[in-house]
Amino acid sequence: MSKTIIYPVRVEFGDCDPAGIVFFPNFFRWYDAASRNFFHQCGVPPWRETEKTRGIIGTPVVDISSRFVRPATYGDQVEVHSTIIEWNDKTFVMRHELKRDGELLCEGRDTRVFAIRHPDDPSRIKAIAIPQDIREMCS
Amino acid sequence: MSKTIIYPVRVEFGDCDPAGIVFFPNFFRWYDAASRNFFHQCGVPPWRETEKTRGIIGTPVVDISSRFVRPATYGDQVEVHSTIIEWNDKTFVMRHELKRDGELLCEGRDTRVFAIRHPDDPSRIKAIAIPQDIREMCS
Amino acid sequence: MSKTIIYPVRVEFGDCDPAGIVFFPNFFRWYDAASRNFFHQCGVPPWRETEKTRGIIGTPVVDISSRFVRPATYGDQVEVHSTIIEWNDKTFVMRHELKRDGELLCEGRDTRVFAIRHPDDPSRIKAIAIPQDIREMCS
Amino acid sequence: MSKTIIYPVRVEFGDCDPAGIVFFPNFFRWYDAASRNFFHQCGVPPWRETEKTRGIIGTPVVDISSRFVRPATYGDQVEVHSTIIEWNDKTFVMRHELKRDGELLCEGRDTRVFAIRHPDDPSRIKAIAIPQDIREMCS
Repeated sequence: MSKTIIYPVRVEFGDCDPAGIVFFPNFFRWYDAASRNFFHQCGVPPWRETEKTRGIIGTPVVDISSRFVRPATYGDQVEVHSTIIEWNDKTFVMRHELKRDGELLCEGRDTRVFAIRHPDDPSRIKAIAIPQDIREMCS
Repeated sequence: MSKTIIYPVRVEFGDCDPAGIVFFPNFFRWYDAASRNFFHQCGVPPWRETEKTRGIIGTPVVDISSRFVRPATYGDQVEVHSTIIEWNDKTFVMRHELKRDGELLCEGRDTRVFAIRHPDDPSRIKAIAIPQDIREMCS
Repeated sequence: MSKTIIYPVRVEFGDCDPAGIVFFPNFFRWYDAASRNFFHQCGVPPWRETEKTRGIIGTPVVDISSRFVRPATYGDQVEVHSTIIEWNDKTFVMRHELKRDGELLCEGRDTRVFAIRHPDDPSRIKAIAIPQDIREMCS
Repeated sequence: MSKTIIYPVRVEFGDCDPAGIVFFPNFFRWYDAASRNFFHQCGVPPWRETEKTRGIIGTPVVDISSRFVRPATYGDQVEVHSTIIEWNDKTFVMRHELKRDGELLCEGRDTRVFAIRHPDDPSRIKAIAIPQDIREMCS
């Protein structure tokens, strides 16, 4: 069984568009915050620290998808339920279920890698093998 | 053959995260702007006008995915190439290719509907059949 | 004595820029959320309801300033302490103090109006006299 | 006479709030992009390069204000006219006038410093004396 970590979000006026509903890129902002929160809750230090200690600058997304079932609006209190559902050699997959009072509003899946600066060109990034210690902390 | 419309984007400092690369939800912001620009270039009025004339408040996304091939950073000049690749009864699918000097950085696909306010509850929205006139303008 | 309402904020990775600190427009996003939260805590309904019942679409900012004393970064838990420090005929002034563990990081002041749609042109907005009932709820 | 550099902005659907007008923190996003564009047009390299060559990580804002005269909405083409109006020992002041068809919509002033990482603590930043070469490039 894998861990599920819950990240609460207040939907704000400025998160909504002229139709009065959440502008959808904000859902990805919340998935990402829930993803970082997942690692934090599992004991993984901030990326600015892992960059110093072992070169890891974060977990960039290589692939993501989301379906949107019901809209949300400002004043809503929602929760993102996040789990890592797959570990591969170099990638892992997180699922995020965003709920309001238990009702699913949208669901996302992101495939991520652990990245370091590219040794030949610091403006590029490079995926590394999944760090086993972090995998154990998160399982 | 379907139309392809190009939407230019300057990547800004504030679009980038502590790793120095674009924070990925911004790519969805640009896909969305490219989508609205697509309709604009095809002659479809702003949604605030279509809402008055025929109730259409916009084209909310019901499903979206993106893969990220290479990172972008501030100072980059990129282009989103957008096409409608599929028309269904109630949904349509757009493809967005984001390129820098012709090189693909990321690619997204969004499935959208044309929405009106729900007749029974204006806080909800309702998908309608694809408007044939708009489909013709965009093909 | 005027009310002070506290609005908590988690600073996220995506709120920070390539220098690793909060991209400053996000502070204004949080001041605005704290402002709406202030009205909510005082019992003022969402603007989508006040628009229906009395035409008020919100409290747009006409003037704002902020000074930034210390940077914040992701992982920080901060609080916005908001108070209405001045009521005029058509405007009011809010002060927002953003603190981390009691230490002031930045401080903003916004002058706002209560707005309705302009009677002659719904694409414009119009300030009204401060509603006395709302003023009493917030004092 | 000081230089004025013009930065064009397309206002997008996602930049607007439920009142249908630009959510004001976005104006600060555009002022900031206009500020970075100003330096770019004057020949100042990206901060990621100045950080390597001379430690300068950017020009964080220490104080900012803006007044909002008229709202903008999506579809609008606007321009930010930016000038450095004051140089002090450690700070400088930029003025940004945001116009639509020549009409002023809002005006901002930001006081900024040139910053390096703090020598004792890289998570903090430190203002340095205004670099004379950059000042000359921008005047």
